[in-house]
Amino acid sequence: MADAVVDLRSDTVTRPTAGMREAMAAAEVGDDVYGEDPTVNALEAEVAALFGHEAALFAPTGSMANQIALQLVVPPGDELLCDADAHVVTYEIGAAAAYGGISSRTWPAAGADLDPGVVAGMVRPDGYFAVPTRAIAVEQTHNRGGGGVIPLATLRELRRVADADGLALHCDGARIWHAHVADRVPLAEYGALFDTLSVCLSKGLGAPVGSLVVGSAERIGRARTIRKRMGGGMRQAGVLAAAGRYALAHHVERLADDHAKAARLAEALAPFGVLASPVRTNLVPLDLTKTDLDARGLAAAARAEGVLISVLGPRLARLVTHLDVDDDAVDRAATVLAAILRR
Amino acid sequence: MADAVVDLRSDTVTRPTAGMREAMAAAEVGDDVYGEDPTVNALEAEVAALFGHEAALFAPTGSMANQIALQLVVPPGDELLCDADAHVVTYEIGAAAAYGGISSRTWPAAGADLDPGVVAGMVRPDGYFAVPTRAIAVEQTHNRGGGGVIPLATLRELRRVADADGLALHCDGARIWHAHVADRVPLAEYGALFDTLSVCLSKGLGAPVGSLVVGSAERIGRARTIRKRMGGGMRQAGVLAAAGRYALAHHVERLADDHAKAARLAEALAPFGVLASPVRTNLVPLDLTKTDLDARGLAAAARAEGVLISVLGPRLARLVTHLDVDDDAVDRAATVLAAILRR
Amino acid sequence: MADAVVDLRSDTVTRPTAGMREAMAAAEVGDDVYGEDPTVNALEAEVAALFGHEAALFAPTGSMANQIALQLVVPPGDELLCDADAHVVTYEIGAAAAYGGISSRTWPAAGADLDPGVVAGMVRPDGYFAVPTRAIAVEQTHNRGGGGVIPLATLRELRRVADADGLALHCDGARIWHAHVADRVPLAEYGALFDTLSVCLSKGLGAPVGSLVVGSAERIGRARTIRKRMGGGMRQAGVLAAAGRYALAHHVERLADDHAKAARLAEALAPFGVLASPVRTNLVPLDLTKTDLDARGLAAAARAEGVLISVLGPRLARLVTHLDVDDDAVDRAATVLAAILRR
Amino acid sequence: MADAVVDLRSDTVTRPTAGMREAMAAAEVGDDVYGEDPTVNALEAEVAALFGHEAALFAPTGSMANQIALQLVVPPGDELLCDADAHVVTYEIGAAAAYGGISSRTWPAAGADLDPGVVAGMVRPDGYFAVPTRAIAVEQTHNRGGGGVIPLATLRELRRVADADGLALHCDGARIWHAHVADRVPLAEYGALFDTLSVCLSKGLGAPVGSLVVGSAERIGRARTIRKRMGGGMRQAGVLAAAGRYALAHHVERLADDHAKAARLAEALAPFGVLASPVRTNLVPLDLTKTDLDARGLAAAARAEGVLISVLGPRLARLVTHLDVDDDAVDRAATVLAAILRR
Repeated sequence: MADAVVDLRSDTVTRPTAGMREAMAAAEVGDDVYGEDPTVNALEAEVAALFGHEAALFAPTGSMANQIALQLVVPPGDELLCDADAHVVTYEIGAAAAYGGISSRTWPAAGADLDPGVVAGMVRPDGYFAVPTRAIAVEQTHNRGGGGVIPLATLRELRRVADADGLALHCDGARIWHAHVADRVPLAEYGALFDTLSVCLSKGLGAPVGSLVVGSAERIGRARTIRKRMGGGMRQAGVLAAAGRYALAHHVERLADDHAKAARLAEALAPFGVLASPVRTNLVPLDLTKTDLDARGLAAAARAEGVLISVLGPRLARLVTHLDVDDDAVDRAATVLAAILRR
Repeated sequence: MADAVVDLRSDTVTRPTAGMREAMAAAEVGDDVYGEDPTVNALEAEVAALFGHEAALFAPTGSMANQIALQLVVPPGDELLCDADAHVVTYEIGAAAAYGGISSRTWPAAGADLDPGVVAGMVRPDGYFAVPTRAIAVEQTHNRGGGGVIPLATLRELRRVADADGLALHCDGARIWHAHVADRVPLAEYGALFDTLSVCLSKGLGAPVGSLVVGSAERIGRARTIRKRMGGGMRQAGVLAAAGRYALAHHVERLADDHAKAARLAEALAPFGVLASPVRTNLVPLDLTKTDLDARGLAAAARAEGVLISVLGPRLARLVTHLDVDDDAVDRAATVLAAILRR
Repeated sequence: MADAVVDLRSDTVTRPTAGMREAMAAAEVGDDVYGEDPTVNALEAEVAALFGHEAALFAPTGSMANQIALQLVVPPGDELLCDADAHVVTYEIGAAAAYGGISSRTWPAAGADLDPGVVAGMVRPDGYFAVPTRAIAVEQTHNRGGGGVIPLATLRELRRVADADGLALHCDGARIWHAHVADRVPLAEYGALFDTLSVCLSKGLGAPVGSLVVGSAERIGRARTIRKRMGGGMRQAGVLAAAGRYALAHHVERLADDHAKAARLAEALAPFGVLASPVRTNLVPLDLTKTDLDARGLAAAARAEGVLISVLGPRLARLVTHLDVDDDAVDRAATVLAAILRR
Repeated sequence: MADAVVDLRSDTVTRPTAGMREAMAAAEVGDDVYGEDPTVNALEAEVAALFGHEAALFAPTGSMANQIALQLVVPPGDELLCDADAHVVTYEIGAAAAYGGISSRTWPAAGADLDPGVVAGMVRPDGYFAVPTRAIAVEQTHNRGGGGVIPLATLRELRRVADADGLALHCDGARIWHAHVADRVPLAEYGALFDTLSVCLSKGLGAPVGSLVVGSAERIGRARTIRKRMGGGMRQAGVLAAAGRYALAHHVERLADDHAKAARLAEALAPFGVLASPVRTNLVPLDLTKTDLDARGLAAAARAEGVLISVLGPRLARLVTHLDVDDDAVDRAATVLAAILRR
């Protein structure tokens, strides 16, 4: 693709920076299946500490990190509750059921506007002959929920719901960094609310590959076995972990820039009545139901003008700002998209 | 338990009548794994014809019949939509996920008040990188929905939703006989709307054991293999099928009596504000949230007076009328329950 | 099929006798999902006692009984060892892997000529990074092993192998009654050697439907949940259990007759060099590799003369004697088969 | 660990060379989930071409590459045949059964001394009511078989066995490079014999991370979905693929050195009667049953002298030569191990 292309499809498309590449090239490595990669070990310790947990485990993808966590907290045939738009039941190819045997029921998708009372009403406590609920999963920030941030107070209430019936609470925190930056909530404060978290280094943070599962030492011990069964036991993974450490050191605070860019895009498109929800972080969700366009049409028209966007459903599209999109690119994309919507 | 006990826990508790036992004792049988049990074959042909489908398969339980159907229409890792209170994700021990690898998302539980528009909004068509929806399941009548009957018009609309994206529509018709009797809808009219149905002989119809999966010849052919894998390939099952044939011949129309008895129970308890929903068939759902009682307390107090009821949740109880509960028993139960609620 | 047909395909084809039908018709029943069927409860207690175990659970088929037992003793992803011809990996449609997630390795098929040393050499103890072996399964008598009987001394040695690494030992005892009758080993002596057993009422014993899992109270408690997940939680199963109780009372010792009939068949066919192994019980395995016939050809030719036999493989066939085959029928079958082999 | 340590545990412990690190630092990358990483695409095309297949897919580990391939060729509940010591049923945490639902039967472990006749005898063709065999897997070179090389003629015979019943043939080719170098068989000649292969870049070839599945375009298309479900859809994986391309260009022919080093180790240890099998490639398997030592004892004693070896079983150990072990290190290890064995 030509330089001029503005790629707003996802923050997963970012390429490692020069500094990050240097860190990777210099990384000390070992065999991580034997637990001997010093860079992986350092990253795991670092991330565990950030969230105030005992341990963490490196995994090749966010999907694997989530699925390892779910298999840790829900035995086959028992139940997970999550929202109907959650990444774990939408974009992970059904792995929770297909590989984990996990039964799921979902509350109505409302992105970050999570209602703990609704969740509480769905919990099936043990002892009533129904499939027992074992865990609740939330997503922070919420991908299909337009990058919305679940308020800390809501999460605290949800923690009480979980505690009332002895359930585990999992956070799909692929973009929890954005929540941290947007709401100024310390990562450890999020960490304290969850039994397990997954966090991703290769989305907004810009590392090429890698996610982590965070939890208790006991759970992460079992997670090593599950990771191997999933095919995620890599060897000299330190070359990837080095990029992750670099990203944590250099790319967290700068997410505020991405949020500002997304806000600018949103401002430009608001007049067309296509914003699916208010923009809080780096995602701009477009709901085209009030226009004549469908999402594929919009994406094709934009692509013809050098702007790439994601199609999430027949009338749902998504723009994502990130490390590799600068202000000029944002302006250009806004102009292109506005022109298409104006037609 | 003494004769005097009134058992309103479920219509599964019914015992075979004298006529039914005679039919069983006289049944011609063969090895059904080889497809050679004439009574099973006759029952399967009869039930298929009732619903206007090509074929049917006998199974030991309603749970197995449902799970066979779901495995027929949803490949591992793909998606089933159903309501959050559906039997298939509530009372079947997570088999859809644990054995079928089926990913499920659920719409908010509203019993028979199903909104096809809400369902349509949840469908994930193929081709958007999300887990593709393959089937929708509904329950007629609806167990946790208090025996409610989904209107024919609603089912027709849902059929259009399914057709729009090429989805299979499954009916958990364990108590579809009650819907047929309550709404005077021919079984074949229901049958025409669904790709697969499960129907049960051992609930309201009073047979000791047995359910059937109904569908196309191709699907029922594959169902035989799945049934064997589930451990449901019985041998001289004709002794059970004979009871089922007897039940179909003698116990369908009489369900109207059970409905009348349930209505009488409901009338007696209505003044206490505990009816969770209007009573349409043979189930009387009690919602105790506006009383001082919890469901276990009510059940224990009733049991002390010789009346057995079901506990479905902390504040949710259920009464069920059936073949083995006569009018006197209903009156006695009403008196006992009213007295407890009055305290 | 005409009366004159001699059905030697399997002992599963037996039809309930008049006495058995009477017992069924008179059976006291209840809802077995609630644990309230007195006849099922009596049968379970009786069978548990026969094998000297704490508890037993009724199941609709031998396949389900086996699979419940395997799921009890091997967690998903861990290992079962069995022989390459075992029913559990041959005739149960892959359920151990597909539903139980159980990894299996097999020792070379040798029917009842089991070598505990070979099994011991395959065990993978915990702690060497390999999939840990959790259980060993044997089959008594051995179906594809021509109804052979594993000697008691061999089973005792195998018990020591299992104990050495803390493994569970399961017996697929679908036809353990035949071993008991052939070797005069008390059932309790077999029972003492195994952690779990499955036993079948609907093969040689002649009941229409039903098997049991036998084990400790703790295991059978968990088995109830697995049975429900498999779709095996039947209601008034007492009508079937009554047949089982009748079979235990009247049809065990008479298996000696079936063994004698099988011996007579074997004697008639021995001159043709087709006996795959010596006949010990009620199975007569035919290996056609030294003839010009394949198994399907033999079966078709025999069927044309009113004799039905089973095809187990391209050159492997099987004759089975049972309750519904009398001496005349055996003689007739021997004549027919000899004539075909002589051609 | 000090520099002086000689690590013979596995060829997975190799660290990227300076040249390899340079290649990684310079790699052009993109989002591989979108199929846009040019380095990954180049590697996939290169490896497919090497084996004469249409396509290949990059995966984070050899285990995932194997499991993707097995899920491609064996549907849940159907059967895989492999040897009892195969990596796929030994070191992949039961994933074939736990995630793929794949039923396995095994022929007796004999490393590279594979007998196609024995395999043929185990195949269960479709249509005999038994679990149908769908695929056969072999391992080249054979890990627990001491790095033995299956002769080309044997593989050709096995191909005929597979063809006779329409089975897929899979090669776990994690170390197929060593077979190629030891037997001078072109990779494309191996490729022509298999429906699917997995090959590993991070063992003898010295890349930090990465394996590939090789097969037809249709299969590799489906493999992309399975990879995502397994959690193996990485983003800028080109940083890893670049190391793989470097390894293919520079580290294949040099495996002959590793083989020579292994031969020297074997020669030094032969007098102690501990060689489990002749050394053909870079693995030296030690069978301690004729000594007083167990494997853990030997490993501990060696470790105390700065030599690390692998423990594969109570009396089974393994030495592996690789890129990071030079001649001096080999000599030192030989001296240390000989001294321990001499005691």
